[in-house]
Amino acid sequence: MKHYLTVNDIESLPDWVEEAITLKKDPYQFEDLGKRKTICLLFFNNSLRTRLSTQKAAMNLGMEVMIMNFGNEGWALEYGDGTVMDQGTSEHIKEAAQVVSQYCDVVAIRAFAGLVDKEKDEAEEVINGFAKHASIPVVNMESSVGHPLQALADAITLKENETKKKPKVVLSWAPHPKALPHAVANSFIQMMKLQEADFVITHPEGYELNPELTQGCQIECDQDKAFEDADFVYVKNWSSYSDYGKVLNKDKNWTITKEKLGNAKFMHCLPVRRNMIVEDAVLDSEQSLVVEQAKNRVFSAQIVLKKILENK
Amino acid sequence: MKHYLTVNDIESLPDWVEEAITLKKDPYQFEDLGKRKTICLLFFNNSLRTRLSTQKAAMNLGMEVMIMNFGNEGWALEYGDGTVMDQGTSEHIKEAAQVVSQYCDVVAIRAFAGLVDKEKDEAEEVINGFAKHASIPVVNMESSVGHPLQALADAITLKENETKKKPKVVLSWAPHPKALPHAVANSFIQMMKLQEADFVITHPEGYELNPELTQGCQIECDQDKAFEDADFVYVKNWSSYSDYGKVLNKDKNWTITKEKLGNAKFMHCLPVRRNMIVEDAVLDSEQSLVVEQAKNRVFSAQIVLKKILENK
Amino acid sequence: MKHYLTVNDIESLPDWVEEAITLKKDPYQFEDLGKRKTICLLFFNNSLRTRLSTQKAAMNLGMEVMIMNFGNEGWALEYGDGTVMDQGTSEHIKEAAQVVSQYCDVVAIRAFAGLVDKEKDEAEEVINGFAKHASIPVVNMESSVGHPLQALADAITLKENETKKKPKVVLSWAPHPKALPHAVANSFIQMMKLQEADFVITHPEGYELNPELTQGCQIECDQDKAFEDADFVYVKNWSSYSDYGKVLNKDKNWTITKEKLGNAKFMHCLPVRRNMIVEDAVLDSEQSLVVEQAKNRVFSAQIVLKKILENK
Repeated sequence: MKHYLTVNDIESLPDWVEEAITLKKDPYQFEDLGKRKTICLLFFNNSLRTRLSTQKAAMNLGMEVMIMNFGNEGWALEYGDGTVMDQGTSEHIKEAAQVVSQYCDVVAIRAFAGLVDKEKDEAEEVINGFAKHASIPVVNMESSVGHPLQALADAITLKENETKKKPKVVLSWAPHPKALPHAVANSFIQMMKLQEADFVITHPEGYELNPELTQGCQIECDQDKAFEDADFVYVKNWSSYSDYGKVLNKDKNWTITKEKLGNAKFMHCLPVRRNMIVEDAVLDSEQSLVVEQAKNRVFSAQIVLKKILENK
Repeated sequence: MKHYLTVNDIESLPDWVEEAITLKKDPYQFEDLGKRKTICLLFFNNSLRTRLSTQKAAMNLGMEVMIMNFGNEGWALEYGDGTVMDQGTSEHIKEAAQVVSQYCDVVAIRAFAGLVDKEKDEAEEVINGFAKHASIPVVNMESSVGHPLQALADAITLKENETKKKPKVVLSWAPHPKALPHAVANSFIQMMKLQEADFVITHPEGYELNPELTQGCQIECDQDKAFEDADFVYVKNWSSYSDYGKVLNKDKNWTITKEKLGNAKFMHCLPVRRNMIVEDAVLDSEQSLVVEQAKNRVFSAQIVLKKILENK
Repeated sequence: MKHYLTVNDIESLPDWVEEAITLKKDPYQFEDLGKRKTICLLFFNNSLRTRLSTQKAAMNLGMEVMIMNFGNEGWALEYGDGTVMDQGTSEHIKEAAQVVSQYCDVVAIRAFAGLVDKEKDEAEEVINGFAKHASIPVVNMESSVGHPLQALADAITLKENETKKKPKVVLSWAPHPKALPHAVANSFIQMMKLQEADFVITHPEGYELNPELTQGCQIECDQDKAFEDADFVYVKNWSSYSDYGKVLNKDKNWTITKEKLGNAKFMHCLPVRRNMIVEDAVLDSEQSLVVEQAKNRVFSAQIVLKKILENK
């Protein structure tokens, strides 16, 4: 693995999950691996979990961490080929990526979807621009169409909490007041395809995800039916993919309740809107795995950085 | 001590002050104590001294430091119980506090008073929310109603500069163009109550502080009379408490001059408005202790963190 | 050397360049020098290269790094003597500089020209205010009129790439849509005066730089003539100095092309506007040294910090 851009960069999901669970028991066992190595975290968007967990993961490995909020601390970047830069952008991705490569050993990048122009979002110009022009490994801390560190943390959490070989896992849409990206759902689906499970996706009509990703997945638009005998319910809002970036409805019949959940475990990547996405009773119960998922963000990042450092 | 939320969390003020003065002579003597320990500094408001001194204190103890400006880097937090989060707030304090607890060993928080709603400010929803929901120790880097790291630094500065057993210490209001919180004055008063001194509070009528805090304190509304034979004059502006958050006057007769000060030492927590709060002649003289107070912020933070680390 | 404020603080340019080139081969050889030493980087303006390279340089020397964006994280500073601070500024440079000096061993500052008031810009109130009132060494990370870390990096890059004793070096103006400061051009000129070279400055009429700095330099307003037999072409936009801060023209006849460049190496401090300052064909060719220049920012900063640490 050179870069960690998508879930498909995971060489073996079961091995990585196993290794992460071992690492969690003694997070400092590789603290010499990152000696004299520096990671630069570049944020084009806000972050709480990703920022702190990736920083912690790097420190656990003995790395130095440099953090930049690109939006307000750096320069507006240009991505176009051949552009005459006489407008608002001050620096081309070609220079930015090469320059950052001079100052660190790994660069991690967060750059959300704009949700206006599907083609532009799917081109992933920020993360792909860095991957193309940087001379160092690039890690995706959530891009327009994927959030592979989250998906790896979710795989760890599923493994730690599974009580049977082939659990039933449901990915459910839930309502949210604002238009949200598809990144978390996309990566979760890609990750589920890498393991044995009875996997079902449920959402209102019109909220179909990218068909290239859901191809081969069971989709059930009746949420109650989808939840029957579920072991894990992974919940996430996303805006429409076909009517790109639109909020088609905020139907609170899709809000997760304790009753709907049954005996399943509740999962969400956070931040979560209480009593929109899910009612308080679920989050405040033992069935909620959200805090454990957040904790596992450290170990998903640490495994990825460990693989990168070992590869150098 | 689990948390350091108010001056009243100090177990023994004389002992802590003594220990801080010893630490100041050799700040690195406990640099193994914080090995593999991480502190997260969360800023909901601006900071210069608090930010740098707390970071330095943690580094002196060998801790790793993660810093977040919650306002523009994180998510808008919700504090209400049972709120349907369909408006501007993205994440509930319950999740935020639990999540941050997964990534570090101590969390320190700065969140100023809004000065609009007294009840809300006194509820201290940010710092108390973290203290309630976090699973790790919480340190107050200035909250709505208190600034206990500043008060502890002030106690150190008083001790280092006292020339008699029971000095006369005056807390004086002074004019300022904007409405300021009561936090520094409140914590200074609480701290003064923990030690022997001839302590007087002076302010124009209408600027009475929270009576629960000033109970038992000598209050003298004639500034000249209050300053007679003073050894230390601690100056601070605050807005009205009874007419909550209002600037009732900017009377420059209350500005501290060299003449008024006499032989007393001048103290202020900074930042200070020159020639509003105090004239240049005082700040630029040997009588000013403000830079030493700022220096002692490192050692007040370091003692607090040391106590927390030793307690784990 | 106490401070590093201008190129003229370099004690011996050839020695420092030599030492930097040696350091580049083994950047960690002095990693004990900065043990228990802290540098504070204060940004009043945006930064990418300067921020990351100075941080990396400090870490290579084993220093701890504290970073503040003064604009949005700290307080608005006052610089006037005797000002009654009843307006927008919250803290005087006198206090700010003394206070920061309590928390670290070196302070580095970036504060750009405002390009409105020449006299004010040339007074360099931020960097000079810190140098005057701080009790610790101050490093210039680009001030109103100079960028000496860049100039030192450029000297390193010139040395590494020279093929003859006395190369021909041309400093050329190029068009840009916005008004830019003179800092980089100024420091480059000062640096060139410290070494043997055939040095020529070229710019359209009206773009004469500060005559005190260009005194004794060859100025040739015909760009083609200036470029004849050049070994290095150093390109930079700047706004008018005489008609202070104005953009007099954006004449793209001054844009650097491959044809104009001939066999010369192309240099620029970055960020660079592609196809305004220089065409893609140059930047994407082997003749461009811009990425190497950016890399050398680490070693120019590291030499400066090493000199400061050794001097303590």
